[in-house]
Amino acid sequence: MLSLTINAREGRARRGVLRVRGHEIDTPAFMPVGTQATVKSLTPAEVRETEAQIILNNAYHLYLRPGVPLVEHCGGLHQFQAWDGGILTDSGGYQIFSLSSLHKVAEEGLTFRSHIDGSEHFMSPEKAIEVEQRLGADIIMSFDQPIPWGTGREETITATERTHRWAARGRAAWNQETGQALFGIVQGGFEEDLRKASATELAALDFPGYSIGGLSVGEPKETMWAMLDAVTPLLPAEKPRYLMGVGLPTDIVRGVLLGVDMFDCVLPTRMGRNGSAFTWEGRLNLLNVQYQWDTGPLDPQCSCAVCRTFSRAYLRHLLKANEILAIRSLTYHNLSLYQQVMARVRENIEQGTLAEWAAGFLAGYRE
Amino acid sequence: MLSLTINAREGRARRGVLRVRGHEIDTPAFMPVGTQATVKSLTPAEVRETEAQIILNNAYHLYLRPGVPLVEHCGGLHQFQAWDGGILTDSGGYQIFSLSSLHKVAEEGLTFRSHIDGSEHFMSPEKAIEVEQRLGADIIMSFDQPIPWGTGREETITATERTHRWAARGRAAWNQETGQALFGIVQGGFEEDLRKASATELAALDFPGYSIGGLSVGEPKETMWAMLDAVTPLLPAEKPRYLMGVGLPTDIVRGVLLGVDMFDCVLPTRMGRNGSAFTWEGRLNLLNVQYQWDTGPLDPQCSCAVCRTFSRAYLRHLLKANEILAIRSLTYHNLSLYQQVMARVRENIEQGTLAEWAAGFLAGYRE
Repeated sequence: MLSLTINAREGRARRGVLRVRGHEIDTPAFMPVGTQATVKSLTPAEVRETEAQIILNNAYHLYLRPGVPLVEHCGGLHQFQAWDGGILTDSGGYQIFSLSSLHKVAEEGLTFRSHIDGSEHFMSPEKAIEVEQRLGADIIMSFDQPIPWGTGREETITATERTHRWAARGRAAWNQETGQALFGIVQGGFEEDLRKASATELAALDFPGYSIGGLSVGEPKETMWAMLDAVTPLLPAEKPRYLMGVGLPTDIVRGVLLGVDMFDCVLPTRMGRNGSAFTWEGRLNLLNVQYQWDTGPLDPQCSCAVCRTFSRAYLRHLLKANEILAIRSLTYHNLSLYQQVMARVRENIEQGTLAEWAAGFLAGYRE
Repeated sequence: MLSLTINAREGRARRGVLRVRGHEIDTPAFMPVGTQATVKSLTPAEVRETEAQIILNNAYHLYLRPGVPLVEHCGGLHQFQAWDGGILTDSGGYQIFSLSSLHKVAEEGLTFRSHIDGSEHFMSPEKAIEVEQRLGADIIMSFDQPIPWGTGREETITATERTHRWAARGRAAWNQETGQALFGIVQGGFEEDLRKASATELAALDFPGYSIGGLSVGEPKETMWAMLDAVTPLLPAEKPRYLMGVGLPTDIVRGVLLGVDMFDCVLPTRMGRNGSAFTWEGRLNLLNVQYQWDTGPLDPQCSCAVCRTFSRAYLRHLLKANEILAIRSLTYHNLSLYQQVMARVRENIEQGTLAEWAAGFLAGYRE
């Protein structure tokens, strides 16, 4: 099954190697998001060039389109999308609440309508695990009920306790013989005691890894850090911790300082499609007129193929002319930059200099 | 300046090497279209991987956006788009008539409104040459007045004679010291005597190469072949002949048989964006349900990176999910297939087997 070897520590931060089904993943790791079995606009070979070792796919989307039988027919997610690195799937709870037209929440599961064609579907914790296992991901997520920012304490408790029961049901339905590693998802809303109770309860279920869900959904950043600060000490020290859907490069560095090993986020891909380039010093909007005559690369400190090949002026022209190469280039660069930040984070943990390096990085970064 | 070395002939077909400003281009050659200084969805490295040696950019589009001064500031078209192969620019006459809101046709030139922002512009034969030379293309086109299918004889004569006067004016304005090769454009509509007169008139102006314009604009295919058949024997034997905007793989083979050396067409890129894949046996629409479960490559006879990596089922999923990787993959494959056809054409001319091979290819191809 999954193993995490931790080679260096600094404070709560950990530098390790995650092994699962023949894949080796250096942690802390950033996972590009490939919702529909494609990291938008890139080939798998390019995703590998950015130094990603594991990507995230969405079980909800793939269950609806092209459907589990087709992915199975094509040999599973790795062969289907020609990606030989690791794959993690999200279970779909979050997407059912955020994308679909939700029909009914019951203890048994969720009845919902597809955001694509309005067809009605039912998803239970057991079925979510079956879907993820049949899709063929290496790391799969429990089915959980997300809790929006602003939810009251009683409702938070109800949803979190259901998530715990669903985690236990999914764990029982999980076929461990495939080597696919199941993560439990910590919920608990935005109150420290509920978050701690959720972490403790899930730790007792003995999952191969733990996700921290329901953060970065609109709450103030300080609230997010307080929740994370409360949770990570209660999770098993030898198991990987995954902070779902977070975030900016600075958020990732702060997450690592609080003991997180794995991250995913749509920002580098989504903002790339909108014309934003991440740099070591912050984000730049390439549509700004100041870049019109700029013959320099997106980021002079970046070593990626885009920065070695194209000027800001050319990429801005492509962007204004609605050319796909603009989107590809910004996506590729942004994912490369994220992976360069992760590599720097790992080096600094190894050398025991993370706190010092992070202070400088965070101070110099324009959010 | 430009030279064409013809190494083999079979009937009217010629196998040669075109040399211009340090670029070597095997002919007959297919030039992918990169309207806005990008072959849509591909990197220059990928365009090179498809075996293209020269691409086409559009002076009209680039004059309007990003503008000649910006391209010059970035070192010219080669450096701007990071393409080290050959570049041919179309002069813009065709685009002014087809895309812009035309204000006034006069002997002096064309007054028109930009299709992007409605701004008013004036383009003369002299200015078109200046624009193309400043953009930095290796091969540039005369400014011509296109003649739509259905135009009467008198109007055709008027427009063709103006095109001849404009060709002479452009030739006089052309700075030959840069090594940029200027092609005259044969017009003459759809009557054999007018086409022949146009070819003879332009041949007398002694251009480094000749384009055949105004075909494949809606006329029956037999009319197009009749016009081409009439024109190529009248063009200087030692100079390259470029059939503008043509066509399907079968059209290109027929054009080669009639003595054409250079082709460009948006079909492989445009149809790729619409979900069509060209194969050795015809075109397939990947959206057809018959490909849903098809784990084979787009074309089993194709050796391109897309056919080595992705299945029809996966590419169809990407297409249905509106993913950019579908467009990229189909574009890359289609351009690769076109170049594979060109390579086969060249081999067959060298071996004196073109007529035989072409008969089999044309018979087996579903248009």
